[in-house]
Amino acid sequence: MNYIMELDRIKSEIKKRKARRVLLQFPEGLMNSALKISKELEFETGAETFISVDPCWGGCDLAETEALKFNADLLIHFGHSPWPKKPKVPTLFIEARSEVDIRETVLRAVTLLKAKKVGITTTVQHIHKLDEVKNLLEEKGFEVSIGKPSGRAKYAGQVLGCDLSSVAKLNVDQFLFIGGGTFHPLGIALATSKSVIAADPYSGKAIDLKEMTKKILMQRYAQILRARTATRFGVVIGLKFGQINLELARKIKNKIESKGKEAYLIAAEEITPERFYGLEDIDVLVITACPRIVIEDSPQFRIPVITPRELDVLLEFESWKNASEDLFGYKL
Amino acid sequence: MNYIMELDRIKSEIKKRKARRVLLQFPEGLMNSALKISKELEFETGAETFISVDPCWGGCDLAETEALKFNADLLIHFGHSPWPKKPKVPTLFIEARSEVDIRETVLRAVTLLKAKKVGITTTVQHIHKLDEVKNLLEEKGFEVSIGKPSGRAKYAGQVLGCDLSSVAKLNVDQFLFIGGGTFHPLGIALATSKSVIAADPYSGKAIDLKEMTKKILMQRYAQILRARTATRFGVVIGLKFGQINLELARKIKNKIESKGKEAYLIAAEEITPERFYGLEDIDVLVITACPRIVIEDSPQFRIPVITPRELDVLLEFESWKNASEDLFGYKL
Repeated sequence: MNYIMELDRIKSEIKKRKARRVLLQFPEGLMNSALKISKELEFETGAETFISVDPCWGGCDLAETEALKFNADLLIHFGHSPWPKKPKVPTLFIEARSEVDIRETVLRAVTLLKAKKVGITTTVQHIHKLDEVKNLLEEKGFEVSIGKPSGRAKYAGQVLGCDLSSVAKLNVDQFLFIGGGTFHPLGIALATSKSVIAADPYSGKAIDLKEMTKKILMQRYAQILRARTATRFGVVIGLKFGQINLELARKIKNKIESKGKEAYLIAAEEITPERFYGLEDIDVLVITACPRIVIEDSPQFRIPVITPRELDVLLEFESWKNASEDLFGYKL
Repeated sequence: MNYIMELDRIKSEIKKRKARRVLLQFPEGLMNSALKISKELEFETGAETFISVDPCWGGCDLAETEALKFNADLLIHFGHSPWPKKPKVPTLFIEARSEVDIRETVLRAVTLLKAKKVGITTTVQHIHKLDEVKNLLEEKGFEVSIGKPSGRAKYAGQVLGCDLSSVAKLNVDQFLFIGGGTFHPLGIALATSKSVIAADPYSGKAIDLKEMTKKILMQRYAQILRARTATRFGVVIGLKFGQINLELARKIKNKIESKGKEAYLIAAEEITPERFYGLEDIDVLVITACPRIVIEDSPQFRIPVITPRELDVLLEFESWKNASEDLFGYKL
């Protein structure tokens, strides 16, 4: 797999800014380039480079605090488009466009499309290939729509794991997602309740997300049911750069208390099951940070873990039918 | 187990400082008090409290950055004595003295003492019991010494997991440690190469650390041997409040490069094996953060993980004999 790492642009930015201490941050999938990039930048610019190995799940997970801790004068974040919030440290976002060919996989995916009006969408890694996808589909007689940049998505047709708003209101019958894995297309299915076909150019496979979406929705409903008898609620605030939302946490705490239940504000950098082992009297966690923590990781927790929208269902402010057709609340 | 949590002092400090947002931080062993303390403080002071669930291994692991992220105006850190570095957020250290009785366990431990000159030592949880221990031992005819406050230890006779300097130069033949578990007494044995008896008042057991120390020293030597052929070194900087040491990391990088090997500066909040999965070309990690990460966790890593002093052995600046008799370098 080859990605465009824009090393020339990075070198000239380091020189232009006279940066001396540079923090390099990579998501897991790009970490195997870290040593080579670190050495090349040190050799060619004379700057000192540091490789951050803390988790990096998105542009939300910017190593701003880490950079401040050793007075880095430049942070280089690979793999995501810029997050719409100004960091306290000068930051370069290197989007790491993929050079993988998508044509064959898209042609395979086309055989799974059942509707005429198709929305096409991808992550920033393949955003430069979306016109090619559009042409391929139009040649086959589909009516193709591409969502406008919206929320945290910088480009037309782009989705993030947490922000599917660019596609949520498209007037289409089905979606075709191009990119690796099932994380993003699952998000689209949950956000729109429409059929989603995923074309993965790395594996060459095309799949329908229908079964996976059904399974996740059943899991979500089961989590809400399990939380029915909860009396002590943990309202979890994520401390990552783009995930902190104190106001939402306070609103949720008030909502819970208005129903005569106890609520505790809990703060965490990483929201993983073992962090809550000591709080054994908490019955349910409401996560105000990334909604994908709930969707992907809740089976690993001892207690139910739900989103703010699911809390509304639990507290009977909202019906499960409405919520389940728009799990991220984009159609509200 | 009961600990003195000084709630009255906390309440009056919150009121005196007019604190509105208070971050509560507990080590694992005290987390079961978090909900009760949170509710009581909110009820009696009107302040908003947040419970931090990020790992908390010592006073070094102060949630300063976390507190800054939501403008907390007071940080309350339970379970450790104050760390000798001024935090950027007003901080109360609540030492959480234990009310457990130590007499019976100490009497049991006395039967394992083989030398006349005994150094007695403990953690902050039992520091108020050290005079009682001294009297008990003197009644039995021992010559008792207590180390002066030193390094990160605030009290006479106190040890921290990372700082055994208060006992390292005591003129004694053997140590008696009072406290839970084997973490601290193992540190004393590794720092002094003297015999250590641990009296655990929670389990009521007294043990000799000899076998465990021998096993750890063998593990340490095996890690150094395994690193002999290493060509790519990761020099790991811990980003925690009391663990960051950029100067040491730079010195180590230079040392490694002076021997013709490659060195990379790597930064991490938490230093755990999975953070390094992506850096598969790194052959060995040198940890400049807490030395106990190396001693306790290295068997969980795929590659050798060593301390700066062990690196000196590996690079042949130092003999294993000298290093192994003073693993933390206090006798230097």
